[in-house]
Amino acid sequence: MSTSASDPRPPLALTLGDPAGIGPDLVAALSTDLARQPVVVIGDRQVLGERADLLGHFMVTAGWEPDLPLSPGRLNVWHTPVAKPVVAGKPDCANAESIMTCLERAAHGCQQGLFSGMVTAPLSKQVIIEAGYSDFTGHTEYLAGQAGVEQVVMMLVAGDLRVALATTHLPLRQVADAITGPRLEQVLRILHRDLSGHFAIAAPRILVLGLNPHAGEGGHLGDEELRIMTPVLDRLRASGLHLTGPVPADTAFNPDMLKDHDAVLAMYHDQGLPVLKYAGFGEAVNVTLGLPWIRTSVDHGTAFALAGTGQARSGSLQAALNLAMALRARSA
Amino acid sequence: MSTSASDPRPPLALTLGDPAGIGPDLVAALSTDLARQPVVVIGDRQVLGERADLLGHFMVTAGWEPDLPLSPGRLNVWHTPVAKPVVAGKPDCANAESIMTCLERAAHGCQQGLFSGMVTAPLSKQVIIEAGYSDFTGHTEYLAGQAGVEQVVMMLVAGDLRVALATTHLPLRQVADAITGPRLEQVLRILHRDLSGHFAIAAPRILVLGLNPHAGEGGHLGDEELRIMTPVLDRLRASGLHLTGPVPADTAFNPDMLKDHDAVLAMYHDQGLPVLKYAGFGEAVNVTLGLPWIRTSVDHGTAFALAGTGQARSGSLQAALNLAMALRARSA
Repeated sequence: MSTSASDPRPPLALTLGDPAGIGPDLVAALSTDLARQPVVVIGDRQVLGERADLLGHFMVTAGWEPDLPLSPGRLNVWHTPVAKPVVAGKPDCANAESIMTCLERAAHGCQQGLFSGMVTAPLSKQVIIEAGYSDFTGHTEYLAGQAGVEQVVMMLVAGDLRVALATTHLPLRQVADAITGPRLEQVLRILHRDLSGHFAIAAPRILVLGLNPHAGEGGHLGDEELRIMTPVLDRLRASGLHLTGPVPADTAFNPDMLKDHDAVLAMYHDQGLPVLKYAGFGEAVNVTLGLPWIRTSVDHGTAFALAGTGQARSGSLQAALNLAMALRARSA
Repeated sequence: MSTSASDPRPPLALTLGDPAGIGPDLVAALSTDLARQPVVVIGDRQVLGERADLLGHFMVTAGWEPDLPLSPGRLNVWHTPVAKPVVAGKPDCANAESIMTCLERAAHGCQQGLFSGMVTAPLSKQVIIEAGYSDFTGHTEYLAGQAGVEQVVMMLVAGDLRVALATTHLPLRQVADAITGPRLEQVLRILHRDLSGHFAIAAPRILVLGLNPHAGEGGHLGDEELRIMTPVLDRLRASGLHLTGPVPADTAFNPDMLKDHDAVLAMYHDQGLPVLKYAGFGEAVNVTLGLPWIRTSVDHGTAFALAGTGQARSGSLQAALNLAMALRARSA
């Protein structure tokens, strides 16, 4: 175990994401703060050093490997080399394998108790897919596979607002068929369990959005609410969950409704995330529920155009780290 | 013509909506202000009087009919009787015909030049459909039919934020097939034309959201952006329209993006409206573009539970009236 005597918990892993994106910029910008915390950065140490130099950040790194102690006061880096030199802003499929190795090291480390959780900087799905990982659909789905869990739940957090998704990265035309009774039940059970557990909310109250506009308006605008959603919600209420809905998405996000609920469950990506990101832009955090470990992430992409320019804002990565640290502190 | 010598434009019509909903509450609450403006309320005069009494609002009405002048200083009401006595909060399908007559009077009045535009208080689609108007799908679609126009565009306005919809009240599973090249082109042309005309924006800049999450992420999350949307946008750009997109919906509503655009075009209801209503709750206005006349509306429903309680907020109806008056002032 690589932790100090005063803090028995393993450190957090922080994956660098696409080395040509803003991940290295953000880690370099936050490095002084990161060096004071139990965090291991997983990525290419040289890329990180070059980016810090380019941006004029003072950064002192230390090499780290499993079973080594953390070097206090330094940014601990588990060196995971890229295959080809990195130019900020110019993604290269040749480095996709290194990106995936970082993820794999973090996930396996969490499984083996080497890390107590992980924070991920952004990668480009397009780069990964075009490099030949053709069934890669995102960090969240990949980690579910690594953990061997059937279903995880993506939740975004911005301040007091928490929005979880019943489906994530699906073409819109596949969404309606993906909202089945079993999936909805599983998602609600995970959401309830992890809000109770990780977030320490005693009896979480969940606001469930309808699939259709106006939540189907009594069946006139789609019947999934009546046919699929309401029976599941009724059954789960009977088993003790606090659920409101299905309610119309367009009027759900008003202060009166939100103050009485701990999380909103949207049925799909663009129903829930525009409002969450509007409410918390730059400081929203992505949390993966249902994994056997803690995982948080930034709410933005690789922003290749900003990489190496000094204009990338570190608010979301900072918030992702803060939330992961808070959840870690609540863990046993 | 029923207008004063100083204002040659015809008055606005204001339909009362479902008489058991909060429409009468809001009109009674705003009646002093409405009495000073060129507005004709279309609804049951007795219902309106009873609601004002119930809520303790001072209100002086005057009967109005086509070809009569407006009574200054009074709330002018084109009496349109209900079939059965109204209990606030208890909708009754027997009064659906009266609700539809109000709408018809407003629409025909606009067509005949009796009114320069219309503002609508909320009705319940469910009540109208269950009364036998089985193909009724909403105010907006009904007015398009009355005007004999093939396509109208629903746009919501909250402060500086304007969000228009390419599709409106459709079950989610029908949305993807409804986004065709011809529809998208027609919607964008109407949006461009009415922002230029009614809103007097010289060269409107429109931000177009992708249909799929992440705007399809280069075809990996749906191909409609590449197959349908981008060709239409390219063609319209060549004809002089200022269009950005298709862009991912979840990151579109950030201040940097919004400040460079006059309106956002969402592909469907729950992609655009949750964020718009979150941004402007209680003061958002619904505008119908593409009609031969001005039409604005509240952004909320009938709120039967609030009718007659004095708790309904009139901010959205006030904003809808203000916007209709402003657009009327810009008309010839």
